[in-house]
Amino acid sequence: MRRIWTNARVITGLSDEVAPEDLEILTESGRILEVGANLPRDSAEVTDCGGALLTPGLVDCHTHLVHGGDRAFEWEMRLDGATYQEIAQAGGGIASTMRATRALSVDELVDTALPRLDHLLAEGVSTVEIKSGYGLEIEAELNMLRAARRLGQLRPVRVITSWLAAHALPPEYKGRGAEYIDDIAIPGLERAHEEGLADAVDGFCEGIAFSAAELEPLFARAAELGIPVKLHAEQLTHQGGTAFAAGHGALSVDHLEYATPADAAAMAAAGSVAVLLPGAYYMLREEQVPPVAAFRAAGVRMALATDCNPGTSPMTSLLMTMNMGATLYRLTVRECFAATTRHAAAALGLSGETGVITKGASADFALWNAESVAQIANRIGFNPLKARVFKGDFV
Amino acid sequence: MRRIWTNARVITGLSDEVAPEDLEILTESGRILEVGANLPRDSAEVTDCGGALLTPGLVDCHTHLVHGGDRAFEWEMRLDGATYQEIAQAGGGIASTMRATRALSVDELVDTALPRLDHLLAEGVSTVEIKSGYGLEIEAELNMLRAARRLGQLRPVRVITSWLAAHALPPEYKGRGAEYIDDIAIPGLERAHEEGLADAVDGFCEGIAFSAAELEPLFARAAELGIPVKLHAEQLTHQGGTAFAAGHGALSVDHLEYATPADAAAMAAAGSVAVLLPGAYYMLREEQVPPVAAFRAAGVRMALATDCNPGTSPMTSLLMTMNMGATLYRLTVRECFAATTRHAAAALGLSGETGVITKGASADFALWNAESVAQIANRIGFNPLKARVFKGDFV
Repeated sequence: MRRIWTNARVITGLSDEVAPEDLEILTESGRILEVGANLPRDSAEVTDCGGALLTPGLVDCHTHLVHGGDRAFEWEMRLDGATYQEIAQAGGGIASTMRATRALSVDELVDTALPRLDHLLAEGVSTVEIKSGYGLEIEAELNMLRAARRLGQLRPVRVITSWLAAHALPPEYKGRGAEYIDDIAIPGLERAHEEGLADAVDGFCEGIAFSAAELEPLFARAAELGIPVKLHAEQLTHQGGTAFAAGHGALSVDHLEYATPADAAAMAAAGSVAVLLPGAYYMLREEQVPPVAAFRAAGVRMALATDCNPGTSPMTSLLMTMNMGATLYRLTVRECFAATTRHAAAALGLSGETGVITKGASADFALWNAESVAQIANRIGFNPLKARVFKGDFV
Repeated sequence: MRRIWTNARVITGLSDEVAPEDLEILTESGRILEVGANLPRDSAEVTDCGGALLTPGLVDCHTHLVHGGDRAFEWEMRLDGATYQEIAQAGGGIASTMRATRALSVDELVDTALPRLDHLLAEGVSTVEIKSGYGLEIEAELNMLRAARRLGQLRPVRVITSWLAAHALPPEYKGRGAEYIDDIAIPGLERAHEEGLADAVDGFCEGIAFSAAELEPLFARAAELGIPVKLHAEQLTHQGGTAFAAGHGALSVDHLEYATPADAAAMAAAGSVAVLLPGAYYMLREEQVPPVAAFRAAGVRMALATDCNPGTSPMTSLLMTMNMGATLYRLTVRECFAATTRHAAAALGLSGETGVITKGASADFALWNAESVAQIANRIGFNPLKARVFKGDFV
């Protein structure tokens, strides 16, 4: 069915401009056919948007949405003054999420993730990236991505998956990172690829996780399989992951608190998006802000994402993420908007497909009871979403 | 109708303990008649709570929920690098909220505040304090509190009002604080009192607002009228407002970033509650944390509130406030819970009436899909409320 969306104040997201325009949008079969003023009606049905602000559907480009259990208990312990040692002894840390995730079936993983996904969708999200990375053995890692795919069938949302077996070392591989990559991360990736479960390959390059040298064979195998890569890098210390990832043409490099201007230059050359995750920065009370000025100077596109995970960013609000991007990282409102639409789509290899309102893109819109993007990002815990459109339909 | 609430894991909030207990609650005519195990059924109807966590309804004890306009535009300007001077020249600052508020009728003030109130209620809030303070002339100040009272009629919520004419100096009184108190704040308070609009008297003691000496006649008049007082104090600098307010037996002193151990001792002696407002601290990127250790040492009760206002804390989430209390101020989970229940009620003069589950209190409950308070406070942008009960009824 051909439909014309009219009486909306449209922000196309094609540039950094966020002043709404009086435009109409013609859609058919889930795609945008035309954007312009006073489009010819022909046989199209007309939908009056009631003067709403109409933007691209939002894109959350970095989440660990699928996982078992939660870590509120260890957060409570930490606030009570417990040391990391005491928390580890009480069974806390990423190993607790690994155990809880391994214990769940795909159905159970889906059931526990759905309320989190629904919170994201209620704020206008149309595309969400979901990583593996808490199974840390092949079958459990595959189950996480099977659950992610299932979520995309159960809800009107585009799910993009990332194979993140190289997220942490499971206890059984303590001190044997290279062996874990060979035994688990690479063979598991091949299985995931056969099953159509891996849209990208991700890793965590950090002193407490993997070195670039350990990750090299994994990224090489990803290249052979034709799967794009991305990387968690320079979150807690500078380890050189950014240069390594950029060298592999990474779609994105994520976190980046300790990235340098040289890293920014390498990312610009590779076209890698900088995915900033202020939720983890906030929860961990970090003080090192990513080098936003260097990214601007180098022309690196910046995205923002929830990083939804049970340990360091138990966050299911992309609107709060925008607010933190502005408040904590001093991104402008224009930057926060591009960071959750066009640039977030680019971080997932979806440039032109979603995150923009333009001819040929998927008809993914968010309609807001708001006058400006500033009003949407400025408020905390207030959701002005009026309606959401996914692939041309109200959902 | 007598009703027994069963199959709930109850946190009474009577102590700092937040381990749920298997208790039943007998209610009638909106009040709690009995709390205990295996209560006799007699003629009571039984409501099965399905194993939910049941807590007192939450209390948001400091808001500026009623106001005209918003200040997202100046926030955007600030992020773009504008100076305070440039923002003032563009019509920003508290004067812009004053103009927008003065321009609205009571009906319009109610209409614009309702969505904000509904966001609070959706997270389990049963009691909300609402201040005047943006009219800054008698009729506009009265209209704000008339709107606040109306909100309490339109929604199932207990609204407590504060007369905050001494919030800022309107342009027409520039440099004449004492005259403004004499001309507007005191005569207006008398009008508000006649109309039953002022449950408390509040003021802003700060270099950019009023001195303790200027506020003295207002607090003296409040005492004559039998109205309790509270005060915004030591937010940006130390001005001595806390000692002044404690000397007047204030219900609460609010903000308190720059309060001293001596202030804490004075508050403890007066029984004043410390109302902490981390939303404003976050939005303003303050670095001075209130003296939490001194409050603990002195035995000062701590509350947390949204401070919902268009300028410095555009926040309508008391759950996010709890998270910020823990993350930014290092309050424990137990302290965050007491801070939004029992201690917040105390800040409003409602000790024993709400914020606790005990014989004689109002039957105000929040039921949660959660295992612990830590789970409720740990997550960001996730609302686990299952149901809300106000004065004995599901709402």
